[in-house]
Amino acid sequence: MTSHIPPERYEARLAAAREALAAAEADALLVGVGADLRWLTGYEALPLERLTMLVLPRDGHAALLVPRLEVARAACAEAVEDGAVGLVAWDETDDPVALIPPIVAGRVTTYSGGDRFGEPGGDRAGRPPEPGGAVVAAASRPPGGHRRLLVSDRLWASFLLRLQGAFAGAAFNLASTVLRELRMAKDADEVALLRQAAGAADRVIDALVAGRLVGRSEIDIAREVRDRLVAEGHDSAAFSIVGSGPNSASPHHEASERIVEVGEPIVFDIGGTIGGYGSDVTRTIWVSGGEAEPDAEFRHLYGVVQRAQEQAVAAVRPGVTCERIDAVARDVITAEGYGPRFIHRTGHGIGLEEHEDPYIVAGNAERLREGFAFSVEPGIYLDGRYGARIEDIVVCGPDGPDVLNAVTRELVVVDGR
Amino acid sequence: MTSHIPPERYEARLAAAREALAAAEADALLVGVGADLRWLTGYEALPLERLTMLVLPRDGHAALLVPRLEVARAACAEAVEDGAVGLVAWDETDDPVALIPPIVAGRVTTYSGGDRFGEPGGDRAGRPPEPGGAVVAAASRPPGGHRRLLVSDRLWASFLLRLQGAFAGAAFNLASTVLRELRMAKDADEVALLRQAAGAADRVIDALVAGRLVGRSEIDIAREVRDRLVAEGHDSAAFSIVGSGPNSASPHHEASERIVEVGEPIVFDIGGTIGGYGSDVTRTIWVSGGEAEPDAEFRHLYGVVQRAQEQAVAAVRPGVTCERIDAVARDVITAEGYGPRFIHRTGHGIGLEEHEDPYIVAGNAERLREGFAFSVEPGIYLDGRYGARIEDIVVCGPDGPDVLNAVTRELVVVDGR
Repeated sequence: MTSHIPPERYEARLAAAREALAAAEADALLVGVGADLRWLTGYEALPLERLTMLVLPRDGHAALLVPRLEVARAACAEAVEDGAVGLVAWDETDDPVALIPPIVAGRVTTYSGGDRFGEPGGDRAGRPPEPGGAVVAAASRPPGGHRRLLVSDRLWASFLLRLQGAFAGAAFNLASTVLRELRMAKDADEVALLRQAAGAADRVIDALVAGRLVGRSEIDIAREVRDRLVAEGHDSAAFSIVGSGPNSASPHHEASERIVEVGEPIVFDIGGTIGGYGSDVTRTIWVSGGEAEPDAEFRHLYGVVQRAQEQAVAAVRPGVTCERIDAVARDVITAEGYGPRFIHRTGHGIGLEEHEDPYIVAGNAERLREGFAFSVEPGIYLDGRYGARIEDIVVCGPDGPDVLNAVTRELVVVDGR
Repeated sequence: MTSHIPPERYEARLAAAREALAAAEADALLVGVGADLRWLTGYEALPLERLTMLVLPRDGHAALLVPRLEVARAACAEAVEDGAVGLVAWDETDDPVALIPPIVAGRVTTYSGGDRFGEPGGDRAGRPPEPGGAVVAAASRPPGGHRRLLVSDRLWASFLLRLQGAFAGAAFNLASTVLRELRMAKDADEVALLRQAAGAADRVIDALVAGRLVGRSEIDIAREVRDRLVAEGHDSAAFSIVGSGPNSASPHHEASERIVEVGEPIVFDIGGTIGGYGSDVTRTIWVSGGEAEPDAEFRHLYGVVQRAQEQAVAAVRPGVTCERIDAVARDVITAEGYGPRFIHRTGHGIGLEEHEDPYIVAGNAERLREGFAFSVEPGIYLDGRYGARIEDIVVCGPDGPDVLNAVTRELVVVDGR
């Protein structure tokens, strides 16, 4: 049974976002395609050059602007279906940005009559007038004054610059300044989806370790990873890093034509999404071909990574800072002389985005709260030689860590032939 | 043999971009992850929350800022390998935006010594000082004054707002204001890649039409499409719209669980990339099961789409406006009374992006030039019933259209069982 976000959750999220807008003394959220839009409305929009935008004024009615081509898809979004957000379709020759200021000003008070596919201005292109075209009615806020607008963090510059033109004198800031607080703490349904995804990814690791690896290219193995991620229940495979031999020393190495040999490690860093929520697990194994066992340095290095990861995970509890979790992992690695070989932060938040707040990195004094979900993934990389990384997704529970991945973190040595 | 862009092409493109910057009286291009970056440098960057940015000052040395984790990948980009662009790595706790103003001001004059992985400031995190750290030397431009900066169209708001903070008083505009002119007219190598991709997509259509369709879900067929796109030579499958029966009337329908029946059309709209360049072909077929032939209205409607597409393609030549191509297709369809059922523009440019300039749409007075590459894809959609669309990629040749797709545009009726 697949977990899911109950439809009524979206109305609660929109209400929470409005409250946060008021607390931030901002006038509206302008949310383009991406995770914020999905989190607020359930709408998984395509990243198009045509503007799709949720306009959530602090006081007035919320509207989802979509190109007319996307109306059928957008109408199925939970927040649109239950009427929390009105749908406004724009046509190929419209300027969609011009439709936004009246909505922000709270001057658009209704979108819906018999249907919600209205458009301000009504008839167009020969189509019959639609009951429910947005009605521009009495202003609920006085016009004028400098507005404060929050745009989604990944909104494209092409849209932001046009918005800045349409709202001259307004102050623009990022939507994450209010939404990150809301999105970082996952609710039980979100954690259930993350757990389901983690379990599916774990099964892929198990299957990989049990199969043939020697003599295959990284690309071939990466293809198997993607197929297995979907077969195990992911909606889609997002990434499948397969770094063998010296490539294991490059954290963002992608799969190459290199052929896996005996007597070397492989780093698998794989993930996909279920219901929008991501999996992301890393395991490093050693391929022996029945004879070439790990050398002493690799065993040592692996043990250091394992200890760093274990101790960082164990440190997770409400009130601990993100930078502290990073420091716990880093201190273990530095004490063994590998500090300069741990060349990235310890982790990143995960949810509707592969990488999102909170980042587990030096300088981030954010304190963990219950429901925060993030990776813990220290690594050691010896350039040109080999490397190792171990990664789990961890949710901050009321008293300590809830580790979503369960596949073994011990050094697994496989024959691989 | 796969076509490719010769490495020396990037230096020429960077030079052309500088000339265009000068003509536009702009100070620098700030190009984030995406097609502009790939076009200018060859670098196919990952869309990360960590900033990757090409800083191309009108006068000073160009720099590619990358997170240290990405150095190995970025170093392989053609424009970096041949030294046209210096690589500047930043570390997890750096503020990469703070590194940009001196580069824009032309005050950074060299990045490379023995290696190019330099970083302003040198030693950090215990790593040995790297020869080739960026050297801040004599200013080649006076500081101060209001700058004009062009940012890539898809740069995220999170980066743009920080840049606006770092360059107080500067005027920001879109990189496309100078790059679109350069990117719209494809050179012979780009056309060769587009042609190769189109041929591969055509072969997928041929194979689909020859296989079993009845009784299969759209999702199952879409999966076959993706596998075949890759098998025919695409680096990756980008999209595979399979709209059967009433779903054929929804232009951006994605594949669903609906089972294909006899006596209905299927719209296939499929594409992937080869060397970064896209294929995008649409064909509409009828599945008869050996008995249920197309009805008279569908035959008529299909014939109208076919005529509209053919005439719009035939109108392609240098000097004709984009809106004229749209009008040619639309007039054919409107004359038959289907005007309101042709609910989208006639086409979009294609290259390193699936959708890019020029758009073949009413209101776009841009005149075609040799090398412009775009789709011509009129359609007619009868809601809840069925629809049809035909799409080819067309390059504007010196005297007329160069149609890259060759698979038949006649109405194909297949048994499909």
